[in-house]
Amino acid sequence: MAGSVFGNALKVATFGESHGAAIGCVVDGIPAGLNLSEEDIQKYLDRRKPGQSAFTTKRNEADRVEILSGVFEGKTEGTPIALLIRNEDQHSKDYSDLKDKFRPGHADFGFFSKYGIRDYRGGGRSSGRETAARVAAGAVAAKLLDEFGIEVHAYTKAIGPVQIEKTDLDECMNNPLYMPDHKAYEKASDYLKECMKKKDSAGGVVECIATGIPAGLGEPVFDKLDASLAYAVMSIGAVKGFEIGDGCRAAQANGSTNNDSFFAENGRVHKKTNHSGGILGGISDGSDIILCAYIKPTPSIAQEQSTVTDAFDDTTIEIKGRHDPVIVPRAVVVVECMTALTLADALLMNQSSRIDRIKL
Amino acid sequence: MAGSVFGNALKVATFGESHGAAIGCVVDGIPAGLNLSEEDIQKYLDRRKPGQSAFTTKRNEADRVEILSGVFEGKTEGTPIALLIRNEDQHSKDYSDLKDKFRPGHADFGFFSKYGIRDYRGGGRSSGRETAARVAAGAVAAKLLDEFGIEVHAYTKAIGPVQIEKTDLDECMNNPLYMPDHKAYEKASDYLKECMKKKDSAGGVVECIATGIPAGLGEPVFDKLDASLAYAVMSIGAVKGFEIGDGCRAAQANGSTNNDSFFAENGRVHKKTNHSGGILGGISDGSDIILCAYIKPTPSIAQEQSTVTDAFDDTTIEIKGRHDPVIVPRAVVVVECMTALTLADALLMNQSSRIDRIKL
Amino acid sequence: MAGSVFGNALKVATFGESHGAAIGCVVDGIPAGLNLSEEDIQKYLDRRKPGQSAFTTKRNEADRVEILSGVFEGKTEGTPIALLIRNEDQHSKDYSDLKDKFRPGHADFGFFSKYGIRDYRGGGRSSGRETAARVAAGAVAAKLLDEFGIEVHAYTKAIGPVQIEKTDLDECMNNPLYMPDHKAYEKASDYLKECMKKKDSAGGVVECIATGIPAGLGEPVFDKLDASLAYAVMSIGAVKGFEIGDGCRAAQANGSTNNDSFFAENGRVHKKTNHSGGILGGISDGSDIILCAYIKPTPSIAQEQSTVTDAFDDTTIEIKGRHDPVIVPRAVVVVECMTALTLADALLMNQSSRIDRIKL
Amino acid sequence: MAGSVFGNALKVATFGESHGAAIGCVVDGIPAGLNLSEEDIQKYLDRRKPGQSAFTTKRNEADRVEILSGVFEGKTEGTPIALLIRNEDQHSKDYSDLKDKFRPGHADFGFFSKYGIRDYRGGGRSSGRETAARVAAGAVAAKLLDEFGIEVHAYTKAIGPVQIEKTDLDECMNNPLYMPDHKAYEKASDYLKECMKKKDSAGGVVECIATGIPAGLGEPVFDKLDASLAYAVMSIGAVKGFEIGDGCRAAQANGSTNNDSFFAENGRVHKKTNHSGGILGGISDGSDIILCAYIKPTPSIAQEQSTVTDAFDDTTIEIKGRHDPVIVPRAVVVVECMTALTLADALLMNQSSRIDRIKL
Repeated sequence: MAGSVFGNALKVATFGESHGAAIGCVVDGIPAGLNLSEEDIQKYLDRRKPGQSAFTTKRNEADRVEILSGVFEGKTEGTPIALLIRNEDQHSKDYSDLKDKFRPGHADFGFFSKYGIRDYRGGGRSSGRETAARVAAGAVAAKLLDEFGIEVHAYTKAIGPVQIEKTDLDECMNNPLYMPDHKAYEKASDYLKECMKKKDSAGGVVECIATGIPAGLGEPVFDKLDASLAYAVMSIGAVKGFEIGDGCRAAQANGSTNNDSFFAENGRVHKKTNHSGGILGGISDGSDIILCAYIKPTPSIAQEQSTVTDAFDDTTIEIKGRHDPVIVPRAVVVVECMTALTLADALLMNQSSRIDRIKL
Repeated sequence: MAGSVFGNALKVATFGESHGAAIGCVVDGIPAGLNLSEEDIQKYLDRRKPGQSAFTTKRNEADRVEILSGVFEGKTEGTPIALLIRNEDQHSKDYSDLKDKFRPGHADFGFFSKYGIRDYRGGGRSSGRETAARVAAGAVAAKLLDEFGIEVHAYTKAIGPVQIEKTDLDECMNNPLYMPDHKAYEKASDYLKECMKKKDSAGGVVECIATGIPAGLGEPVFDKLDASLAYAVMSIGAVKGFEIGDGCRAAQANGSTNNDSFFAENGRVHKKTNHSGGILGGISDGSDIILCAYIKPTPSIAQEQSTVTDAFDDTTIEIKGRHDPVIVPRAVVVVECMTALTLADALLMNQSSRIDRIKL
Repeated sequence: MAGSVFGNALKVATFGESHGAAIGCVVDGIPAGLNLSEEDIQKYLDRRKPGQSAFTTKRNEADRVEILSGVFEGKTEGTPIALLIRNEDQHSKDYSDLKDKFRPGHADFGFFSKYGIRDYRGGGRSSGRETAARVAAGAVAAKLLDEFGIEVHAYTKAIGPVQIEKTDLDECMNNPLYMPDHKAYEKASDYLKECMKKKDSAGGVVECIATGIPAGLGEPVFDKLDASLAYAVMSIGAVKGFEIGDGCRAAQANGSTNNDSFFAENGRVHKKTNHSGGILGGISDGSDIILCAYIKPTPSIAQEQSTVTDAFDDTTIEIKGRHDPVIVPRAVVVVECMTALTLADALLMNQSSRIDRIKL
Repeated sequence: MAGSVFGNALKVATFGESHGAAIGCVVDGIPAGLNLSEEDIQKYLDRRKPGQSAFTTKRNEADRVEILSGVFEGKTEGTPIALLIRNEDQHSKDYSDLKDKFRPGHADFGFFSKYGIRDYRGGGRSSGRETAARVAAGAVAAKLLDEFGIEVHAYTKAIGPVQIEKTDLDECMNNPLYMPDHKAYEKASDYLKECMKKKDSAGGVVECIATGIPAGLGEPVFDKLDASLAYAVMSIGAVKGFEIGDGCRAAQANGSTNNDSFFAENGRVHKKTNHSGGILGGISDGSDIILCAYIKPTPSIAQEQSTVTDAFDDTTIEIKGRHDPVIVPRAVVVVECMTALTLADALLMNQSSRIDRIKL
């Protein structure tokens, strides 16, 4: 059954395998009248582009986006916006020795079980390359949010055991790991080099903050804002844990310390703290939204691993080819974009919540 | 916009406020021919019923479910199954002094911001009472899964700082905290009494295991099984973190330790470990599915807290009335039921994945 | 797969078999702040109530609606509105001799083929009784539209060969066939008596007009307003044809006669004619919306008919019991309500069409 | 709000304006393992290609389709199938004199009212060119149906006042009007030449028959097969009426003549007649499905018409450029494809209707 369509008022249908002709998406439901150019989207795609440092695959994709529809004279028309990214540097041959083996930690066996088909070309649809379409769509959502003063920023919070100790968003763009703490970046860099020497890989944490959010977004009881964010972020490959606000730590807190007290200032309601991460009862409370995605280590490693063939015989595998020793830095913009898509959808859904706001 | 409809092939629409006439749901998409009785559902509802111990509200609701439709001569008809639970012990007066104040940690302010209306009757739609409808629906899903040898079991993994050290599912039903470790239960019990003395509350962790799952469930790239589970579980009020398999710990692991090796036995594929929690690439891999929900402390506490009125003036609040010092034990069956609904939906969605399985 | 959930921004899930415990619906997505009482809904239900004339079944149902949720202190809360109608006069015994035969013109065989189950109790889910839930939901939609000056009126345009020659909406409520032309009513009445004498039944046409519609409703290219109306109206049992505006007659017209010329008056755009029925390119054009539903004769007739048993043996059948000789008069309010639901949904969906209308 | 996504188990998202870079679609939910090539799709597209006769616009588009994803080694993978058709012969200049006028009978005014934007390039999203994406998607659905012996055929039943008198499907492909009756074609051809002389246009009727349909497709009470077909067909621009089986004629029939008697033969149930058009109670009954689409005359005519400017001033308009004098022949394959998509979706949805058919 169809599973590649995301969203409600704003829908995104993505497509594409890693080594097929192209990847892309259709973004349907963006209001008419938004300024939008290919450059607006390209700058997001450039942030997830491979080949930017020692820590990302050398696969060389220009990843140029083309707007196929939905924009006329520089403005959105209210019609579906189709975005296309051609696959260029496909190197299918690299994968030929994996043709009949299931890679541990990868989707190979699940896809084979489900579809009875083995697309051995670097993961096919389950490749991380699929996320480029999410980024393209998310860039459009971010442009929409920007019109209303809503900003979304993600960064690397941890690489393996190395955690950030400060959050300097400017620093973030100065290092290839997108860490907002230069010292942490240096330590993480050393850690990754160590992993690579051992033919091993690392995981990490992406944090994402959205500012300028009005109170009132989210549609209980199922399409709560935090539930929708969890769905969006957990649908990114390799994410194994999700937190909103204090997240898992809240389970050990007490009501007296976890509750955020309200106070009034300038005729608006504020909170003294933000343990809730900006969402109460599934609805935004007007504070910053803060979420974390916990990402597992890259499953492709050059060490020998036990596995089975597609004829269900035991064998071993060593995964060669171009693979990031850590997924996290390239996942940063993906988490940001899935967050932006979810918030934009929530913003549009909220337009019909109150009778005094309905317009003919 | 409508936000109380859950699912795809299997859809559940829930309704009901805590102090209105009734709560319930419509479960649409259950295949015809399943044996189903009110007793099948009632035994799940009884597990979340209040008033069962010192740690749950004394609100006394029989919570009797009535099947209104969709079942004929003891079997489902393939038509929508409507389930009704009357509200009985409503005590609206208890809440009258909260009428114009926003309770910290609660949904009050969000709901007011969104809808411009204040349903002060114990939370209205945002009350935990809403979850009874989820449990009723989930019981039907569990009955369906049971036909195919799939079982779902949830239990309390931690209460505040007290963690279980073993998982004895039989013990689980012997203590009111649903902990599968009697010693941990005793410690947790002491901890909760301490909290109550301080007019404070506690959080905790619910773990859920599903066994008998075939490989192949989940619909990438958005309706991945783990994304759908995250959505389902995070839509339960008070859940602030979600993990699948090793969850957040995976972020600190290495590929060599986090990957699960495959091996063949009796013509089937197995995994030596289950760090993945039974899901790879968003598709079930045939191992047990394991997930955790991190639940915040009950926000209703009798201590004085700072807050604001609905006229946006500063004030203080002390929340009296009947409130659980910990939500966790009653959330256990809710997590189990949302997991069952998600798995049942995934099972039905997967029926059309391969051309060689399509039947006229 | 779930098929009893209608709508997009506004969703309606209906449930109920003709001879089960109850029928009803959950209406999710109605904005908060709308005045709504049971009486608002009851007056619509009373219009489709049986037992009102010689031409409707004598089955005697009070069809009292109960609002179970979503309304607080007389106003909608933005949460799901559940509506319940108990079945009272069920007479299951009447149907026992049909238990193993498929009635010609009825859904029996289709339901048996699909679900492998035979609910012989008067059609079960396929009974016309199901439409009471649509009427209850539609009454809520009509109340919402009314706030914005949008009115929806349906009436009987034809009974068998008898067509109306004028449209006097006041007359409409004065005769049990809901015909807006007293002379046509008298002729139709004679025609129906003739049919009844022959143990036969008749069909007819329902026309529906919506006034006060703003230009701009409808979401191309699939959720066009006329496509959505066709879906809504054709989902009513026994409707075999659907027209918007000139409908089938347009196929024989020429562009020069079928096009509606525009003209400007008082700063607004008007049309000199309304062949389009108020919709152009799937979007409302600001004129009245006009649609027709063509309804087949009641399939339950007392004449002997050839059919088969559920063991697939040839047999004959004579359908006794209480059956309307014509469905049309009771279908009038159903067509009106499905139109209202579609327009209300379109109104809410249109809130996010333009960036200059989006509100934080 | 998003309105360009069609379907349930099988979803199709289309995109594209008539004079933008490209049109196309994402087809999500096709089972894995179906043989599919570009040629399978191209042959459907070639049937709606312009420039094939005196009666279709001379706009010259090769309309070559490219499969961007979802097919590997000649078989579908179960992943989204993206189909791309570049726009080539765009001639935007032709439309420049229409830039500030609303064309009568066209979507211009509705789109302007809804989106506040005027895409004057030949209709933009409301152009008939949009249907090429439907045809591409429908060709994939037809390929799926073909695997199960289900065939869908549409043809022209009437052009203006000229009706066919026989249905010779072979003849159908021999004349540019796709009429299955050569004599009727000749008369229609004369009629159209007459219209063109008068600078006028004509409408007509498309009929569609689906054979090999199993009993049991359709999901009551809303997603009935006839309601879904009505939605699909009425979403095609210019369709103003829809019928299933006897359609509008059923309204004048009696139960005794409209009911189809059942009989048994070779252990299967058959019907002596097919007034129902293959659908009873919203579920296929195993007979051929027969539907009709009534299509209005082309609104673009070279005669002078009264209209208004986008500044809401009265003016006149004469529409020059390349326009079909009749839409019907090019709509034939579009009706066929929307029918195929609806049936394929219904087939997939039906996989989960009965517990004895569910597979792990």
